[in-house]
Amino acid sequence: MLHVVIMAGGSGTRFWPESRRVYPKQFLKLAGERSLLQGTFDRCLPLVSPEHVWVVTNAVQAEETRKQLPGIPGANVLIEPCARNTAPCIGLAAIQLLHQDPDAVMAVLPADHVIRPPEVFRDALQSASELVAANGSRLVLFGVPPNYPATGFGYIERGDAIDDAQAAWQVASFREKPDRETAEEYLRSGRFYWNCGIFVWRADRILEAIGTHEPEMHQRLQDLAQVIDSPEWDGALAEHFPQMNSISIDYAVLEREQGICVVEAPYEWDDVGSWHAMPRLIGSDDNGNTVIGRHHGIATKGCIVRTTDDHLVATLGLEGCIVVHTADATLVARTDDENAIKKLVELIGDEGDDRFL
Amino acid sequence: MLHVVIMAGGSGTRFWPESRRVYPKQFLKLAGERSLLQGTFDRCLPLVSPEHVWVVTNAVQAEETRKQLPGIPGANVLIEPCARNTAPCIGLAAIQLLHQDPDAVMAVLPADHVIRPPEVFRDALQSASELVAANGSRLVLFGVPPNYPATGFGYIERGDAIDDAQAAWQVASFREKPDRETAEEYLRSGRFYWNCGIFVWRADRILEAIGTHEPEMHQRLQDLAQVIDSPEWDGALAEHFPQMNSISIDYAVLEREQGICVVEAPYEWDDVGSWHAMPRLIGSDDNGNTVIGRHHGIATKGCIVRTTDDHLVATLGLEGCIVVHTADATLVARTDDENAIKKLVELIGDEGDDRFL
Repeated sequence: MLHVVIMAGGSGTRFWPESRRVYPKQFLKLAGERSLLQGTFDRCLPLVSPEHVWVVTNAVQAEETRKQLPGIPGANVLIEPCARNTAPCIGLAAIQLLHQDPDAVMAVLPADHVIRPPEVFRDALQSASELVAANGSRLVLFGVPPNYPATGFGYIERGDAIDDAQAAWQVASFREKPDRETAEEYLRSGRFYWNCGIFVWRADRILEAIGTHEPEMHQRLQDLAQVIDSPEWDGALAEHFPQMNSISIDYAVLEREQGICVVEAPYEWDDVGSWHAMPRLIGSDDNGNTVIGRHHGIATKGCIVRTTDDHLVATLGLEGCIVVHTADATLVARTDDENAIKKLVELIGDEGDDRFL
Repeated sequence: MLHVVIMAGGSGTRFWPESRRVYPKQFLKLAGERSLLQGTFDRCLPLVSPEHVWVVTNAVQAEETRKQLPGIPGANVLIEPCARNTAPCIGLAAIQLLHQDPDAVMAVLPADHVIRPPEVFRDALQSASELVAANGSRLVLFGVPPNYPATGFGYIERGDAIDDAQAAWQVASFREKPDRETAEEYLRSGRFYWNCGIFVWRADRILEAIGTHEPEMHQRLQDLAQVIDSPEWDGALAEHFPQMNSISIDYAVLEREQGICVVEAPYEWDDVGSWHAMPRLIGSDDNGNTVIGRHHGIATKGCIVRTTDDHLVATLGLEGCIVVHTADATLVARTDDENAIKKLVELIGDEGDDRFL
């Protein structure tokens, strides 16, 4: 049976002031009436029923997660006691799925990406799960064909084609975020994909792979698996989880394992990395402005304006700026440096204004 | 007896979004803890007692005026039924003063300027009133020595010195707002002053001059004078005032009259014409930023940031911008054109968002 595991523990300072520690990017309505988290859930239905959708999040975000996804059983919202990167997160989900369904196939999805159109995504997910059904040892990744020489993503190099599938290949290598020149080579070669962090595999197979490469993590997961649904779960989780190696599934397993497959993603994908994604997601007007909320401008070009609660943002002679108004804080930024907002948020914390974080 | 008449009927779109139709510039705290109106009142004390301070305003601003100046007798807040420029305004005040005090000398002060230091201003006011006491026919203006070739003010050219006073001259001519080249000539000559709209004269003398140059206005003022303190006042005011010629005291009287004197203002004067005045008024930090309220910035230079109610404004890579946050509207402007905000406010009105005006 296909299950979906949504990884939803992000912090997302790049969307400050709208994203906050307890209200990160996946909760924001950046691409329509539904939040990114809700969008991730929605696009899996009806391929996967809500009882087979799982969300891994943390304690401070659990309440909002349940509020935004009332259709998911409460027990399907798994709470990490602390952040330990994606390998322990996926391991935790895997033991829960196996407890319900020994043949569980799990699709792992980040909570805060935009993927369109949903039916194309569902078809791709279905095809990937069939690849896994045909050969249970496969670890399947989606690779997004690059359309510009991005330096902010990891890349997957494809190798030999897989006979029994279309647009599926053995993975030849994983590549770190490249410099500009290398990214241009990747783009030209036609053999490289962006690693979009979407995986499909059998739950028992990924646990086995964790056992091979991270035996201590695997042992702790096995210990946890023994106490699922028992009163000892919370205590065991609080004991074992923080001691697991904080490592991504890519480093822990994928880059060390044989038989990884990459499937070319046929859908439009955007990781919504910063406010600069907004024009791509919702378009812009004749002046190149992307506006959400009440705005009037004169001589305003190439700006991103977002305001809520009917608060008016008025702009004059402004070019290439981001203006985001929220109830207690307003950002005005003119920058192409996507990390700059992170630095600004750090400064605000350093200055003792923690309540804005 | 010296009386002070504060003209406080401004609109002040240049300070939008903080200034509004019912809350114009004079009510704003732009240069400290007290509003410009309160500052204008404060700096006259103790030279003039509060019972001799009068404010001319309009119906929608009367309540806030009384609230900001609780020390002034309620009857001293005069309400114009409509805006008719400064000649009818000053005429209205003159008949009220004369009703109380046939020998009233009136100092006419705009409500929305910044003048420092107060004791120098009071000394200058005292000297001017002595000039008028020595010769009741004198109409005295303060002229501000220009320190740059401003094109936004009217100028006063001085003529012969007045024997019995220091730094006082006959007015040789009034000049409209000049072009840049002419303003530079004025500055070089040393004979020109900015007309700062501060006047000192006997109330009966200015009424007489209105009678000479605007006989119909004078007749209406005389008719009104007959009904002061009677139940007929409101009706008579509503009848006569709107029919008076809408004209400034400069055009109506000063430019047509003989014997006008200009006294060199020894005080620092600023008409606070726009947000760009803020650095002059309250200084700026090492990055050239002038900040009122809670602000954090990175790579922010030469900006004016104003926010209230502990709302955080955070800026990134911003230069030469004005950011003003209020409860229901935020302005972000990059402009040297002081009239641009006025156009923006007009646009907001045209778009039907009157509630922000």
